[in-house]
Amino acid sequence: MKAIVKECAGIGAVLKDVEMPVLCEGEVLIKIKAAAICGTDQHIYVWNNWAQNNNINLPTILGHECSAEVVELGPGVKNLKVGDYVACDTHIPCGECYQCRNGEQHICQNLKLFGVHTNGCFAEYAKIPAVCAVKIPESIHPNIGAVLEPLGTSVRANVEIQSSGKNIAVIGCGPIGLMAVSAARAFGAANIYAVDINDYRLGIAKELGATEVINSTQCNSAEKMCELTNGVGVDAFIDASGNTFAILDGFKALRKGGKVALIGLPSRPLEIDLGSQVVFKEATIIGIHGRRMFETWTVMSNLLDKGLLNIDPVITHVLKLEDFEKGFDISQQGIGGKVILVP
Amino acid sequence: MKAIVKECAGIGAVLKDVEMPVLCEGEVLIKIKAAAICGTDQHIYVWNNWAQNNNINLPTILGHECSAEVVELGPGVKNLKVGDYVACDTHIPCGECYQCRNGEQHICQNLKLFGVHTNGCFAEYAKIPAVCAVKIPESIHPNIGAVLEPLGTSVRANVEIQSSGKNIAVIGCGPIGLMAVSAARAFGAANIYAVDINDYRLGIAKELGATEVINSTQCNSAEKMCELTNGVGVDAFIDASGNTFAILDGFKALRKGGKVALIGLPSRPLEIDLGSQVVFKEATIIGIHGRRMFETWTVMSNLLDKGLLNIDPVITHVLKLEDFEKGFDISQQGIGGKVILVP
Amino acid sequence: MKAIVKECAGIGAVLKDVEMPVLCEGEVLIKIKAAAICGTDQHIYVWNNWAQNNNINLPTILGHECSAEVVELGPGVKNLKVGDYVACDTHIPCGECYQCRNGEQHICQNLKLFGVHTNGCFAEYAKIPAVCAVKIPESIHPNIGAVLEPLGTSVRANVEIQSSGKNIAVIGCGPIGLMAVSAARAFGAANIYAVDINDYRLGIAKELGATEVINSTQCNSAEKMCELTNGVGVDAFIDASGNTFAILDGFKALRKGGKVALIGLPSRPLEIDLGSQVVFKEATIIGIHGRRMFETWTVMSNLLDKGLLNIDPVITHVLKLEDFEKGFDISQQGIGGKVILVP
Amino acid sequence: MKAIVKECAGIGAVLKDVEMPVLCEGEVLIKIKAAAICGTDQHIYVWNNWAQNNNINLPTILGHECSAEVVELGPGVKNLKVGDYVACDTHIPCGECYQCRNGEQHICQNLKLFGVHTNGCFAEYAKIPAVCAVKIPESIHPNIGAVLEPLGTSVRANVEIQSSGKNIAVIGCGPIGLMAVSAARAFGAANIYAVDINDYRLGIAKELGATEVINSTQCNSAEKMCELTNGVGVDAFIDASGNTFAILDGFKALRKGGKVALIGLPSRPLEIDLGSQVVFKEATIIGIHGRRMFETWTVMSNLLDKGLLNIDPVITHVLKLEDFEKGFDISQQGIGGKVILVP
Repeated sequence: MKAIVKECAGIGAVLKDVEMPVLCEGEVLIKIKAAAICGTDQHIYVWNNWAQNNNINLPTILGHECSAEVVELGPGVKNLKVGDYVACDTHIPCGECYQCRNGEQHICQNLKLFGVHTNGCFAEYAKIPAVCAVKIPESIHPNIGAVLEPLGTSVRANVEIQSSGKNIAVIGCGPIGLMAVSAARAFGAANIYAVDINDYRLGIAKELGATEVINSTQCNSAEKMCELTNGVGVDAFIDASGNTFAILDGFKALRKGGKVALIGLPSRPLEIDLGSQVVFKEATIIGIHGRRMFETWTVMSNLLDKGLLNIDPVITHVLKLEDFEKGFDISQQGIGGKVILVP
Repeated sequence: MKAIVKECAGIGAVLKDVEMPVLCEGEVLIKIKAAAICGTDQHIYVWNNWAQNNNINLPTILGHECSAEVVELGPGVKNLKVGDYVACDTHIPCGECYQCRNGEQHICQNLKLFGVHTNGCFAEYAKIPAVCAVKIPESIHPNIGAVLEPLGTSVRANVEIQSSGKNIAVIGCGPIGLMAVSAARAFGAANIYAVDINDYRLGIAKELGATEVINSTQCNSAEKMCELTNGVGVDAFIDASGNTFAILDGFKALRKGGKVALIGLPSRPLEIDLGSQVVFKEATIIGIHGRRMFETWTVMSNLLDKGLLNIDPVITHVLKLEDFEKGFDISQQGIGGKVILVP
Repeated sequence: MKAIVKECAGIGAVLKDVEMPVLCEGEVLIKIKAAAICGTDQHIYVWNNWAQNNNINLPTILGHECSAEVVELGPGVKNLKVGDYVACDTHIPCGECYQCRNGEQHICQNLKLFGVHTNGCFAEYAKIPAVCAVKIPESIHPNIGAVLEPLGTSVRANVEIQSSGKNIAVIGCGPIGLMAVSAARAFGAANIYAVDINDYRLGIAKELGATEVINSTQCNSAEKMCELTNGVGVDAFIDASGNTFAILDGFKALRKGGKVALIGLPSRPLEIDLGSQVVFKEATIIGIHGRRMFETWTVMSNLLDKGLLNIDPVITHVLKLEDFEKGFDISQQGIGGKVILVP
Repeated sequence: MKAIVKECAGIGAVLKDVEMPVLCEGEVLIKIKAAAICGTDQHIYVWNNWAQNNNINLPTILGHECSAEVVELGPGVKNLKVGDYVACDTHIPCGECYQCRNGEQHICQNLKLFGVHTNGCFAEYAKIPAVCAVKIPESIHPNIGAVLEPLGTSVRANVEIQSSGKNIAVIGCGPIGLMAVSAARAFGAANIYAVDINDYRLGIAKELGATEVINSTQCNSAEKMCELTNGVGVDAFIDASGNTFAILDGFKALRKGGKVALIGLPSRPLEIDLGSQVVFKEATIIGIHGRRMFETWTVMSNLLDKGLLNIDPVITHVLKLEDFEKGFDISQQGIGGKVILVP
């Protein structure tokens, strides 16, 4: 089968023919319908510091966001059957640790990541533990199915901050932030303030339902949001920027008693005055490492199935698998939304 | 000033000139913009058993749902000023009891009701404790402002069951039920099953965003909902019917681990098998006596101000105050939605 | 091996030699250290209506509450090893249904019960799905380990009502109610009102930390609790009686905004006035069907391991397995606490 | 009356005769039974940077933690009567802002602090808004009543992290931290790891129920706690140290999915790697600025009234008001627990 393989250190990857995966206990073989490029793939593709320090065994097949069809069941698989239409959760839980035994397998202590610690889905076929393959409604287009993994993170953030009827900010309008705007719109957030430094992305945010878009290079975003909320501040913010300055602005704009959902991963430490920004403010801060398995998937599927969650504008490019280099280039420039690769 | 006065036992009331209210400590005088007829008003109007047994001192001015303008402040009032546009919460808390001191003044142990235990708002002017007058945005039309009190109950129910992305049922499509459908739509419920015995009301429910309307005289509503959810059952239901048979059907349709918000007031005891319907099912049942003061008001105002909560179709009649008898007739027939009286 | 077998309809069971269990995929063989008689065993033993109507295939080995040692692993078992000291959760989840996939396997839609739908633990050995065998600390005596299953239900109820610092009632002082008193004491409930009709049981409740014991045959328990709380009412109550009159008394004693945890299974419908007892009171009612798997087990193990949860007085009889008839007799009379059978 | 007055910038204060307070609307006059020295008093006493920058008008009477008797009511006071035994909440809410109207008056947007922005309680008498005076049971000794304000912060932290049956850490064993240990013990925390750099304080922590005391100058406290929890990490930690290094150690010891309650006020920014310490860990961090008004007071009173919350060892010195200089000296050295001043 064809696959995009990272063969060795350094920039780039190659499209080549590789052996079909051989299934082990509890695994399924899936035929990829569509896959999406994520920041993590980009890190590995360009082989940056993060990639060099993350125990990635080369050669490896890239990719972890996909929609697919189940074509073969390994021994012991009971929750799926051949022909099922699925999307994949990247989190591979061990099933044995404290977290797995206490309803939090999505933050398993021994968590492995599909497409990072295993061969991934930028290929015609992939194998994956059955527990990670989630049946989804046929009404969801494969290109949308390919981005359910990151979308789930955005939906989860809105569940945690309970955005219905609230005034919220979404900081950072890359794909995750944009999808957080969509989810906030679906949940009935009253005001959604989208913050970014890029007008193109802010334009998409507007299209997805942001009530106000704020280019933080052109104004003080914290002051702007306080003003828009009559001095009260926002009820909650979701950080999808991973930018420490933007996160601090979010805290400044947060009302006393407000909530913060953190998704972004800053490359440097956050320096924060806990007294004024957390303690006196009684902020509640929630770290979000992806989707709850599988409560978040249920909410997300329900919304998509009923046409209540519009993320079409987030998918800006659909390419053939063999055009992956172009895809990584577009993704690298960081201006677009999601890039889909179709085998 | 003109007011609709219930003078004595028996059916009916009269429109007559009465003295202007005299303000006491902590009260405000409001000029009524619009008022709405509620079931409670109906009970008092026809002087049924409920009315006869509820310590209502006659003569009294009817009405408790209204939008208004503050025209005079009594001694000690600080949270309002003359000219403020307000709606009223019917719950008059004592401010001293356990509940009032513990963040639950809406269920005050010594709760008094505006328009039931005091003179009400079917008049040109009314006086009300300042704590019960809630400033609302000018963007909310007075006729909508007049029904915020019942709407808040419906919004609150959706907050409690966290309807975003869920499959829910609304049982009973009188005004409260219809507004619960609207709120569920605003919150992004995935499927909203509206149940009633009246096709006219179900038609309004459909207009407000119900994904499926179920006439329970024409099918087994519990079976229907189980079927629509692939045998799982609904995540939650809101009862706004007060009909014990309908409530039991709701429980039958409820999935294991589901939630129930009870608003309706049955006139007879519910007979329920706790083992199968609550314990084995791990149902969580929440009684809802109106709005939280004032978290619910904030969410509701936010949504209305942004045009995210459509309840226009619930208001089926707008009459002059002097046409109150016609209003009570329409309301009595129970087929319409809300009847507004404009002084 | 020796086992207590229910061979046919009618009262009683026999101790006899049976074949050793043969393990299937995912099962483990356990050597029973101690087992406890539960009301369910009693139902099957006397073959009452409940037993006749619950799809129980005869012959079957009785018993589902036990502590044990793992002596053999079936194919595919990874979470246990030979020699592990375990207690058993009776709930056998399917792992595939909506609830199992959404963090609620303890209320699996296809739930099977160990010792009811499978052979049980009143024997020298038993086989059980590995998922149901929970490792427990060596510091827990086998006789205590044998009652962790019902104890978990009582602990869970206290988690749900958050009893720390609250005034609560425990209604019904059979073993589950008594253990709920112990758990409330461990959680730091301020006042614990234990209600029953039997002074012997109330005596044990007192010993376990009830601040007040109320014999409801000798006073109006609802009035008594209102009086003890200065007219406010209790913050919460746990029903472990399954008696509908007692449950109604609990609701009368409940403060506005209070919580109810229902464990008991009434043999007749509850007739309740929803308006006064649930809606106006804003009661929150939570059905509890056993332990969360496995959050409740963790809390319970932690407490027992540190000596913070005293349930010794609940275990009133320890007998040899062959003396099971005496055990069932004692259990039948309903005056004692838990009866332990040691193989 | 006698009072300890901070007359001007610089170190120190004087005991002198001052005019009796004159009551305004909504205020009460209280006769102080006992008062306690807090870190804030210390800041003002020595007139450090914090004091110089906090809009404190001099001269002012110091002190804000006290128990007292109500001796006179100002106009409009309804929740108290002469003779009531009370303790004081330092938070003076405006009653009008968003937070006050939404059930969070303890974090009022216009919050004023008794004894900081008003004359305080190191005096024979003080005046205070009636809303801040909380009736407490006679069973609570005045010296204990004097420290309910800080104790409430510690109790609240345990409510937020739900410590019953959990393994928790308390970082920093000054008076607030010590009282957090007491509260955790009352709530039934399984393991309580108390961390400090001072063996004297750790000795008190042990006396109050810490299961393990860790002197972080003598070992790596994070590693120690991971080891004590078999590599899982603690379920939650409460920071009462305000030391950024200690807080980071707390995060390292926190299990995935754990909770953090922040009370301490670091004098420098916290530098934290959000990715590893919050996002991947899915930590939930809650800022705590004192007590909820008045849910926390209710829980605290209940526990003290029943003898379930032992904080006697935290009160290390009881002095006469005129010996305040000695009291501030002891408090300054930071080795003792709470210093009480009795007028």
